[in-house]
Formats: sequence, C-alpha cells, structure tokens
Amino acid sequence: MVDSPTGYRIALDVMGGDHAPVAILEGAREALAAHPDLFLFLVGDEPRMTPILKQMSMDKTLVERTRIVQAACVVTMEDKATVILKEKKESSIRVAAHLVHDGSADGLVSMGHTGAAMVASMKVMGTLAGVDRPCLASVLPNMTGHPTVLLDVGANVGCKPEHITQFAVMGSVYAEEVLGIANPRVGVLSVGEEDGKGSATTKEAVQALRDIDLNFLGNAEGRDIWNGRFDVIACDGFVGNAILKSSEALAEGLVNGITATFMESWYSKLGGFLALPALRRFKKKLDYSEYGGAPLLGVQGITIIGHGRSNAHAVKNAIRAAVTASEHGVNQHIQQSLARLLSQASPGQS
Amino acid sequence: MVDSPTGYRIALDVMGGDHAPVAILEGAREALAAHPDLFLFLVGDEPRMTPILKQMSMDKTLVERTRIVQAACVVTMEDKATVILKEKKESSIRVAAHLVHDGSADGLVSMGHTGAAMVASMKVMGTLAGVDRPCLASVLPNMTGHPTVLLDVGANVGCKPEHITQFAVMGSVYAEEVLGIANPRVGVLSVGEEDGKGSATTKEAVQALRDIDLNFLGNAEGRDIWNGRFDVIACDGFVGNAILKSSEALAEGLVNGITATFMESWYSKLGGFLALPALRRFKKKLDYSEYGGAPLLGVQGITIIGHGRSNAHAVKNAIRAAVTASEHGVNQHIQQSLARLLSQASPGQS
Repeated sequence: MVDSPTGYRIALDVMGGDHAPVAILEGAREALAAHPDLFLFLVGDEPRMTPILKQMSMDKTLVERTRIVQAACVVTMEDKATVILKEKKESSIRVAAHLVHDGSADGLVSMGHTGAAMVASMKVMGTLAGVDRPCLASVLPNMTGHPTVLLDVGANVGCKPEHITQFAVMGSVYAEEVLGIANPRVGVLSVGEEDGKGSATTKEAVQALRDIDLNFLGNAEGRDIWNGRFDVIACDGFVGNAILKSSEALAEGLVNGITATFMESWYSKLGGFLALPALRRFKKKLDYSEYGGAPLLGVQGITIIGHGRSNAHAVKNAIRAAVTASEHGVNQHIQQSLARLLSQASPGQS
Repeated sequence: MVDSPTGYRIALDVMGGDHAPVAILEGAREALAAHPDLFLFLVGDEPRMTPILKQMSMDKTLVERTRIVQAACVVTMEDKATVILKEKKESSIRVAAHLVHDGSADGLVSMGHTGAAMVASMKVMGTLAGVDRPCLASVLPNMTGHPTVLLDVGANVGCKPEHITQFAVMGSVYAEEVLGIANPRVGVLSVGEEDGKGSATTKEAVQALRDIDLNFLGNAEGRDIWNGRFDVIACDGFVGNAILKSSEALAEGLVNGITATFMESWYSKLGGFLALPALRRFKKKLDYSEYGGAPLLGVQGITIIGHGRSNAHAVKNAIRAAVTASEHGVNQHIQQSLARLLSQASPGQS
C-alpha cells in the first residue's frame, strides 16, 4: 500500500485513450483544481509523463496532491482485453487496478481499452458478491429532462439471463442511491412490449425479474430509452454499445444539421443567430463529455471508463464521477441490495 | 387467381395497424390518386370496410381500380407471429399473402404485426433460393444526405452467422439496384472496428463476408449508421429493431427539444419564427412516414411492412415503396446476386 493523504484517492490511467497522455494530464490538472479533496495517482510511463508535466507548469499546491506511479506499457486498441493477464502485466490500467485492490486508491479512471479496464477491474480488484459480470452503465438525459440509466453499454457481449437480471438490480440501486430516483422503474430492452416478445435470453430475464421485489415494468423498447417511461433499462452489452454509439452520432448529426438549416436564407440565418445562445445550451446538454464516463458497476472499488476520444474536459468529469461514486458509497448499497433482492429469486421463494 | 387489370397490383392488409381500418383505407385512396397504374386488393372484413368506404365517397375512377377481398379476422399485437399458420388462416395478412402467391398481386403492404407479416410472406409466398431468413431493411437518411440501409430491423431475433451474411448480400443488391449506389460499402454491425471485436456470431459473419466479392469494409459501429461511412449495415434483428426505435424517439425528441429552446426568450422566439420554414423541411426529412415502410427482402414477391402507428400518409408511401420495388425487379436482382456471390463462399473457392 502506497502512503497517501486522506480524501478521495483516484488512480488515473494516464496512458489510455486516443489523446493520451497529454489530454489525460490536462484533465488531471483541471480535476485537482476543481476538487480540493482529490488525490491522484498518475499511472503511466514516467519518462513520457515527466516532460509533459514540466511543460504544463502545474501549480505546486496541485502537484502535492499527485504521485507518479510507474507503468511500463499500455493496452492498445488492437490488443485483446485479456492481454493484461499475461503479456501486459505492467500496463497502466492493471497497475491502476492494483492500487485500488491494495487499498491505496478508492477507484480508478481510464479512457483506454474498455475490455481491458473491465478485465483489470474484475480480475485484480474482484467482483462484488452476487455479481457474475460487472457492467458499464450510461446515464442518458431523456426527453422529460430526467436521466435514464442504460446498462450494459459495452462491457459484456453474449449475456445470459442471470447477467441481465443482475444488471437490472445494479442499475436500480444506482438510480435510487446516486441519482436520487425513488422506486426506479426498471425494464429489460426487447423488441416488443409484451412478455412474449424478445430473445430467449430476454424472456428468461423478464421472468426472473417478475419474481423479485423490484419496480419492474417488463419489456422496454428502443424508444423507451428516451421517452422517460423507464428509469433503468438493462440489456446485453452488444446492443447497449451499438445504441449508445448510434445515439451519440445521431444527436450530434441532428444538432449540426439543424444549425446548417439556419444558413438556407437570410431570415433563417438571422433566426439562427438570435436562437444561438439557447441552441448552445441545448448542445451542451447532449455533450457526452459532460457525463464524464460510464461507471463499471459490480466491482470492488470504483471504476469509471471514459470515451476513448475524451478531451481534458471529459477526463476531468470522469474523475468527478469517480469522486461522487466513492462519496455516495455506491458499492455498499449495490452489494446489500443484490443480496437482499436476489435472495427473493431463490427457488421456492418466489 | 383473381382476374385483375395490368399495372402494379398490390394486396393491402386493411385490418393491420394501430389506426386500421380507417387510416389504411384513406391511405389507399391517396395511393390510387397518386399512381394511375396502381390496382389495389383491399383485404379485410367486408362488413367493416364497406360503410367506411361509403363514408369516404371515393371517386368512381379510383374505386374501379380496387377489389375487396374478404378476410374474416386480423392478427392482433397480442398474437404470436405463428398464429396465421393454424388459428388465423383467414387473417387479412395471410389472405393478402395468398393473393401474391397465386399471382393475382405483385406484392403486399401491411401496417400490422411484423412477425405475422414475415411468417405469412415466408410460409405462403415462400423465400427466394439461397435465403434462409427474409429480413426487414430500413433505409435511413444519414448525415451526408445519402441513405444507409440497416438490416435486419425486426424480423429476425437470434440470427446465425449465415443469416447476417445473407442480409449483407441482399442489402448490397438493394442499395445498388434500387437506391442506385455503385459498389455499395457493406459492414456488419459490431462493438468495435477491428475484426476481433464482436460476438461469436458477428465474427463468423465477418469472416465469411471477407471471402466473397463484395465491397465489404468489415465491422461497422453504431455511429456508422449515421456518418455515411457505410451504405449497408447488417445486424441481428433484435439489435436493428432496438436501434431503429431508439433513433426514431431520439430524433423526434431532439427536434422537439430544439423547438422548445426557441421559447426561452423573446429573441430566441423571434429566431425560431424566422427559422421555422427551414426547420419544417428538416423535420420532414426525419419523418419515418416519408420512407413508407420497410421492405422484407428475400421473399417471392414484394412485401412492405409499415410502422404500426402509420397514418394515411405513411400508408400511401408504403404502397409507393411496393410499386417501386416491383417496378425495379428487385427480387430478380437479389436472387441472381445471392446465387453468384454466395457460390464464391463455397468451400475451396475462397
């Protein structure tokens, strides 16, 4: 265990992400300035980080709340997620996970390889009791102005019914404890509203969820991610990931498309100019970097995995998400609820 | 075989859809007025249709190009898709499929139960040689102003690799022959760009597609549905359906959300007023009812399945889609290309 001050102690994977290490270190500086209680382990290749840090000429009071932890290599997007188990034991994401496991840090933040971050968190930090597969949760702003939690959004491909069930329970706890939604309305993503619609996997998950003490509404459809009818929607990570990436691109394209329509004539140009401040506020609401990153629920410690394309601002917000999750004791709540709720689904008790 | 005039002869399922039979009959009238070469079989319950048709007081020249075909019942959304095989042999969708099968009609159009329309088309009309599962294709407007064909969007849950492969080939033919895209760029929807990313199913489909003479780019991600990097994206119907419904709701919500931002202040209100005509045009571009419906590719005959919530306008456009598909001889092209392309994937030929 590394000796470190009190406060929220986060291990930051400085080497992961499209714009690493520069954007990650800039995000670290912003986060340190925003959170006086934050202590950061900067995990990465010291010879690469040191000159960048020098050039950034970070304030001394911020530097005091950091410690460089050497990691010899990085997981690239071409690597398999399991590369951290053997070939890349000294990778930044795995070293960060060890810092959480040995109690030096409360959580880790990475913009790198999603699968590798999941494997590192699961294998090194371990999973919570009752969780077979940790899952990535995305908090999406729906059209009623409230959040909808979609999970899993990328960590797990080829889920079994019990995985979907666990995602639903973890999502419900997260919505209740962190987002403050009383009695969250939970659904399983499917291709029709009726229980009879869906894949073999979703139908079995729906059956299991009907047997436990959860505000479970049944099947949700794609449209329910945005219409506010559900607070939590559980699905296989393949579907969740495809929907998340599709939605990001569609939203970005629509907003840009509407902005472009303003250029069609002089009066629509003037109209666009007058509406610009309102449009900017709306655009900001849709910016994924505002949400910081997706929490990997179900691991022993906090793991926040950000978008590979994250800039410094997104990195800062991902660190903020880790601090908030730690502050709210999310994992204790998840573990308690999983134990309580899933015991109700035991044979003979439903 | 029912005696009928020449031209494009479409069997219309008058009883299927949320707003049936009124909206369907109104759509029929609009389609007849728009297409002088169109002949419609109005398939449904005659005692229910007759008073509505009387009330509509349709022009006599239009009535002459219709014929009522009695169907005693309708498949409801609560029914299983296979209900048409035994319990509901006299359902409007099955009767419509028989009209295509016996050569009376060139194609059918339904706004009813998607699964039932698929089963009716497959079992009654039959599938094209080389096609294991017909699939629903959705033509989506992407951000470069061109269409992206996403398929399957709802007909097939739990696809095997060979189904995804066939979807890709059929989508490529459709894009080339009907949409006029030379050498369409084809992808398989997955959760990462690299061949190693995805489910066991998508990885195997990618492998098979690399072996045939198709402009196959590899894995597509969710964002590629909208960014114009691909012309055709093949996926399991569960994923495609969830993405399609999610996208419809997101697009609708965003456009409404932006319209609402115009009400925030007097100058943004004025801005919105000035930009209104341009915004209306943009909104119309996103309206699913403009695209008419999704062609079910791979069946012997034309099948267009519209949205359950279709209004008369959407019904009219779905009928137009059926006319166009018939006019372009889509099926002949699909069959030829499937035979040619898939023979290349035979063992020892790759």
